[in-house]
Amino acid sequence: MKKILVYLSNEPKPSLFDLIVAYDSDVDVVLPYGDISKDDITDMVYGCIFTRRPKKLINTAILIGGNDSDLADKMMKKAKKTFFGDFKVSIMADPNGNSTTSAATVVKIKDKLEDLKGMKAVVLAGTGPVGERVSVLLHRERVNVTLTSRKQEKAEKVCGKIKEKYDRNVSPKQVSNDAECLEAVKGADIVVATGKAGIQLISKEVWSQCPSIKVLADVNAYPPAGVEGVEAADDGREVDGKYLFGAVAIGDIKTKGMRDVIRKMYEEKGAYMDLEKIYDITWESLAVKKERYEKGDKIM
Amino acid sequence: MKKILVYLSNEPKPSLFDLIVAYDSDVDVVLPYGDISKDDITDMVYGCIFTRRPKKLINTAILIGGNDSDLADKMMKKAKKTFFGDFKVSIMADPNGNSTTSAATVVKIKDKLEDLKGMKAVVLAGTGPVGERVSVLLHRERVNVTLTSRKQEKAEKVCGKIKEKYDRNVSPKQVSNDAECLEAVKGADIVVATGKAGIQLISKEVWSQCPSIKVLADVNAYPPAGVEGVEAADDGREVDGKYLFGAVAIGDIKTKGMRDVIRKMYEEKGAYMDLEKIYDITWESLAVKKERYEKGDKIM
Amino acid sequence: MKKILVYLSNEPKPSLFDLIVAYDSDVDVVLPYGDISKDDITDMVYGCIFTRRPKKLINTAILIGGNDSDLADKMMKKAKKTFFGDFKVSIMADPNGNSTTSAATVVKIKDKLEDLKGMKAVVLAGTGPVGERVSVLLHRERVNVTLTSRKQEKAEKVCGKIKEKYDRNVSPKQVSNDAECLEAVKGADIVVATGKAGIQLISKEVWSQCPSIKVLADVNAYPPAGVEGVEAADDGREVDGKYLFGAVAIGDIKTKGMRDVIRKMYEEKGAYMDLEKIYDITWESLAVKKERYEKGDKIM
Repeated sequence: MKKILVYLSNEPKPSLFDLIVAYDSDVDVVLPYGDISKDDITDMVYGCIFTRRPKKLINTAILIGGNDSDLADKMMKKAKKTFFGDFKVSIMADPNGNSTTSAATVVKIKDKLEDLKGMKAVVLAGTGPVGERVSVLLHRERVNVTLTSRKQEKAEKVCGKIKEKYDRNVSPKQVSNDAECLEAVKGADIVVATGKAGIQLISKEVWSQCPSIKVLADVNAYPPAGVEGVEAADDGREVDGKYLFGAVAIGDIKTKGMRDVIRKMYEEKGAYMDLEKIYDITWESLAVKKERYEKGDKIM
Repeated sequence: MKKILVYLSNEPKPSLFDLIVAYDSDVDVVLPYGDISKDDITDMVYGCIFTRRPKKLINTAILIGGNDSDLADKMMKKAKKTFFGDFKVSIMADPNGNSTTSAATVVKIKDKLEDLKGMKAVVLAGTGPVGERVSVLLHRERVNVTLTSRKQEKAEKVCGKIKEKYDRNVSPKQVSNDAECLEAVKGADIVVATGKAGIQLISKEVWSQCPSIKVLADVNAYPPAGVEGVEAADDGREVDGKYLFGAVAIGDIKTKGMRDVIRKMYEEKGAYMDLEKIYDITWESLAVKKERYEKGDKIM
Repeated sequence: MKKILVYLSNEPKPSLFDLIVAYDSDVDVVLPYGDISKDDITDMVYGCIFTRRPKKLINTAILIGGNDSDLADKMMKKAKKTFFGDFKVSIMADPNGNSTTSAATVVKIKDKLEDLKGMKAVVLAGTGPVGERVSVLLHRERVNVTLTSRKQEKAEKVCGKIKEKYDRNVSPKQVSNDAECLEAVKGADIVVATGKAGIQLISKEVWSQCPSIKVLADVNAYPPAGVEGVEAADDGREVDGKYLFGAVAIGDIKTKGMRDVIRKMYEEKGAYMDLEKIYDITWESLAVKKERYEKGDKIM
């Protein structure tokens, strides 16, 4: 029986990136739907659960993409509520790749620093969906997380949302100039930049003044970098005793993690791939990748 | 050569249900098109018949879905007219699953009662596409069919349409209350409810007064049932000497029949799968299913 | 790894013809996108080049269709500019099948006349995309080409565009009546009609007065023919010492050529299938076809 992935997006054009990654994840058929609203979810779920016998539903799964992360999360929850008894399929939400990107970022940091417990992290310009998710995952690793925005009010709003949505505690802080930035990152072990492409969030002059900083990561692929000095290909490059991670290195494990999450949807019927599950699988993906690399198998 | 199914729908989003069922019918590739009007049919047919050599066209077929049954029938006829000589492909119309659902309903009844000839049937709230098709198929089995509506005028209009479209004779009758309902079903052998979801069409009090009734079927899956007392999973359950059929049992053979019709489109080039052909194939599907069941093979 | 073809069209509905031909070209998955503008190209290219490792990108390719030939050419150029280093995929533009149709037309003529060098050709009603491309390909075979239009001004405009876009020299000529037509084709070896369906461009009375004419080709499949006397199935039929080619015979090698071009996109990473490349491959396709035919292998 064919492995079918139903791909739902609020955007008119389903993400080509996601469709290709899905086909590279041992899925036989991807059925892409654009312009999907929350109102369409019930019918889409019925289309999934009533077309194959319950025991065969392990071969059907849903991936929610699109460019609205909160909507995608709501769609996923609505789908879950529509399932009943044996009539359920695996489901994953990864709008704009935000969950897999966030997971890959934190996985990279954890892999370098090993135990994150008790460390301090600053998520610069963290008010978008990647900043939100990176903060949540760092807090789950028992890191003390500060999330910054150019406006204190906005940072507070997002931290409030994180508390409500994930029950995670993140501290808000305004960073609108170099002085505030230095104040924010002083004493931090980890700095992650999650701002929009093309905006520098922290200068090298600032971060080089902070001996506590061990890792700087930047999810933005296009210059100028959010963290001055980080290059997209940086995969733990050491500069002044700090390890740098850029978007290409993060993107590499992100894509691998995404493939593995999709594959695992077909191993357990009704798997619910939320952010934390995606993170756990991405962590395993990195471990497998490193093991293969150490064995000399560079073809991944 | 890949088996390609061109799926045409007047709706913007092609039915997920249909696409999954198609992929479960040994089709290699489904090409779904939404927002299709009758004007698009010529180009779509040309796309089918001019891309492969005539002798290879057995590997291309068209399935017309959508939510407008009359339009779908017109599209199917227009496609047939566009074919010429060896330049033709198999085609099937099953908008909203109405033809396969109707076929499955009558097949279930015939399977239980064996010979329907000369029996009396009442199709309650039969003015929609399923009521129309169930009436036609029952009449083809030489059943005397009465089709009801809350308004006599509407029942007459649909019976007129059935006469014109299928050359089948069905009697109209107004049923707007329990007294009229009792009058309609008195003496009937078969009662089928084909109304909208959530509207009870006949109470148990009414049908239990009619010793003539042998079978009650209800195509609506969501409570309250159209026939009070019928449950969705009922597959011939006996209550007060009558056999009850619900939407899930009907849906089961409907999906199987649909798969078989799609499969058969690739066995004969230019097969024209209209309602009667769909019914005949669904009847065979049920026979095969029962045979396998009797052999102890429960995995279907 | 699956061979993926990303199909981009400016039209809302991607061409069914193209999708079926693509699936018949050993492509595993076609991902069709409609309503594509030039602005979407960057994201689409990123979706292609960032989802698989560079060495695996030989398995991803782009086909640009649609109904706007100039736009398609611009999209193709923009895609090429977006590629960098090893991050590139094969790409082909064939809007409305114009490039493959033009290639097939000239290939048919060359196959019949062997060496076209120094010959004279008239492309009647050549102001559309097929006329433009046929003129370019004939000029590349060192033919002296005259392109006609009902208005001198329009013919000049298109010849100017051909000079600018392809650096090919084609002479414009007004043909708005039989006398002008006779004047245009007198002394010509080759006449190709590339006008709209249903408009006769040259009468038999005119062309039978010209002993120099060796080949008359007509790309229009629907009567009346652009060249009076040509039938769609004509594949070099001799009439009054002239060879006639109709749309079905041309379409046959067009489809074969298109399949071969698509196949070759997966043999060389980053292949750039412009008009001339399409022509060269179609020429090989015809040679292979003839060889197989001579061996008695008629199943193609």
